[in-house]
Amino acid sequence: MLIAYRGVMSIPVCVLPQNDPHIDDAVTSADGELVDLDQARVLAWLGGPDGFPELPDAVEWVALPSAGIEGFMRAGVIDDKRIWTNASGFYADNVAEHALALLLAGLRQIHTAARTRWDKKRIDTSVRSLHGSTVMVLGAGGIGKALIPRLSACGATALAVNHSGRHVDGAQETVTWKDLADVWARVDHVVIAAPATEETHHILDADALAALPDHAWIVNIARGTLIDQPALIDALRAGTIAGAALDVTDPEPPADDDPLFSLDNVIVTPHVANPSSTLTENLAPWIAENLRRFAGREQLLSVVEPGSAY
Amino acid sequence: MLIAYRGVMSIPVCVLPQNDPHIDDAVTSADGELVDLDQARVLAWLGGPDGFPELPDAVEWVALPSAGIEGFMRAGVIDDKRIWTNASGFYADNVAEHALALLLAGLRQIHTAARTRWDKKRIDTSVRSLHGSTVMVLGAGGIGKALIPRLSACGATALAVNHSGRHVDGAQETVTWKDLADVWARVDHVVIAAPATEETHHILDADALAALPDHAWIVNIARGTLIDQPALIDALRAGTIAGAALDVTDPEPPADDDPLFSLDNVIVTPHVANPSSTLTENLAPWIAENLRRFAGREQLLSVVEPGSAY
Repeated sequence: MLIAYRGVMSIPVCVLPQNDPHIDDAVTSADGELVDLDQARVLAWLGGPDGFPELPDAVEWVALPSAGIEGFMRAGVIDDKRIWTNASGFYADNVAEHALALLLAGLRQIHTAARTRWDKKRIDTSVRSLHGSTVMVLGAGGIGKALIPRLSACGATALAVNHSGRHVDGAQETVTWKDLADVWARVDHVVIAAPATEETHHILDADALAALPDHAWIVNIARGTLIDQPALIDALRAGTIAGAALDVTDPEPPADDDPLFSLDNVIVTPHVANPSSTLTENLAPWIAENLRRFAGREQLLSVVEPGSAY
Repeated sequence: MLIAYRGVMSIPVCVLPQNDPHIDDAVTSADGELVDLDQARVLAWLGGPDGFPELPDAVEWVALPSAGIEGFMRAGVIDDKRIWTNASGFYADNVAEHALALLLAGLRQIHTAARTRWDKKRIDTSVRSLHGSTVMVLGAGGIGKALIPRLSACGATALAVNHSGRHVDGAQETVTWKDLADVWARVDHVVIAAPATEETHHILDADALAALPDHAWIVNIARGTLIDQPALIDALRAGTIAGAALDVTDPEPPADDDPLFSLDNVIVTPHVANPSSTLTENLAPWIAENLRRFAGREQLLSVVEPGSAY
């Protein structure tokens, strides 16, 4: 169903659950045509799993707005009748920047400074430096790859963890998930940047926490379920690690009396590494690029692998 | 006055106001000899201006422990009878890292998160990104030069300010102090990394603050007197800039009821960019290197220019 538009055959695209100026502009800038769902070959879905519509067979491609899509998987909306793309990598710079901000804030005691008034005695002896340290980057997808050069510029060494063990650019060393048990004790800090799958569930557990050095900071900008949170809280209370800086928690949001909110060595940002207020602005150029690829029958970016959870 | 030591002629060095294991090791590792002041050719002074001793004429070189030495200047301890070195550049990585931590913490609203509990509505709309922004690096000495590659790795553009206007590596543009008035409006954020001199006193004043965009964050890791602090507080209250993240204040420490401690858009760390708890550990390799140069009659690092204030 091609619609003639500006002299070229344009792709009919439906944007739901509501139109958005950034995404609408992206569609028309890529010579797409904004249409209702029953006329669409493409659905740009900007919501979560709830309220996801019944899809006409004519929809050939659904663009989902998030990097982590385990919620859509669980809700059973992803079928094998068409192409699905997620937003993995599209927000990588944003999320990697937030991970660096959390790690530096912890090491540099910004959270303690924010909660006290010139408590020099306490802060001066707690500040640590990122330069000279080794940081495990757990998951070396788009976010991990965006983080590693930032860490290197700060004088830190990155140890990457991925499926294949294939060398990740800029990392001093790359290991596989299977090697993890032997590696925790060799790193200073951990940044979790991996998708939530069965394999990664509670990847940071009591054993891992016990193996880490007591000056370790844990940063999580992925999903809360990658950490065994009660074990983390035990370690934070016991001081067997130095602190945790979390943009994601389990559950989310935490209860108002969650210990995460009262521990001195914890920073919790409310899932804002990729702020929803700027989400469609950041997503728009990628939707446009994928739409051009779709029109040209090229390989789309960030296609969801059937049977994989991300 | 050369003392035979391990078969070579060693340099007699006095460490005051008290000995320190890191500095003592550095002296002996560089084949120096630890002696009392009346026997010394070199004084490694680890204190502030107060209590600085009368110097015998035989002291040829005094190593001061701080980057900013305006306090020693004011106290009149620096004479023209010998060489004086400061520690400018020796802590550059440490201080540049703290500057980046402060800037990212402000942009990413870590201070707000540390003071609230999952206030997503407020934080999500306030988070900004460093990548894509232009950061003025005011003062392009050792700290500025260490900061610029960190900013670049984060996807930001650096605009350097120095005396000569001579291009600073990694900066998109370098301007001189005289050009400043025209430049404030063209940058997103400002990091102050210049020495405290007459020229830089209140360099960030009401006019500069008015010219900056309202999303600007100000970071100061240099000296409090470079900012007209009452003007800064007015701008922070009025919202004509977004925030200030300060490791130094004027005076220092601030009074307990200083508005800096009660404004939501301020982060104050208690002068810990180069923590005193690790100062001598970080200084030690530089003392050793300069001692080797002194013994070899080579040019010392970080010599204080006579007549200059830094």
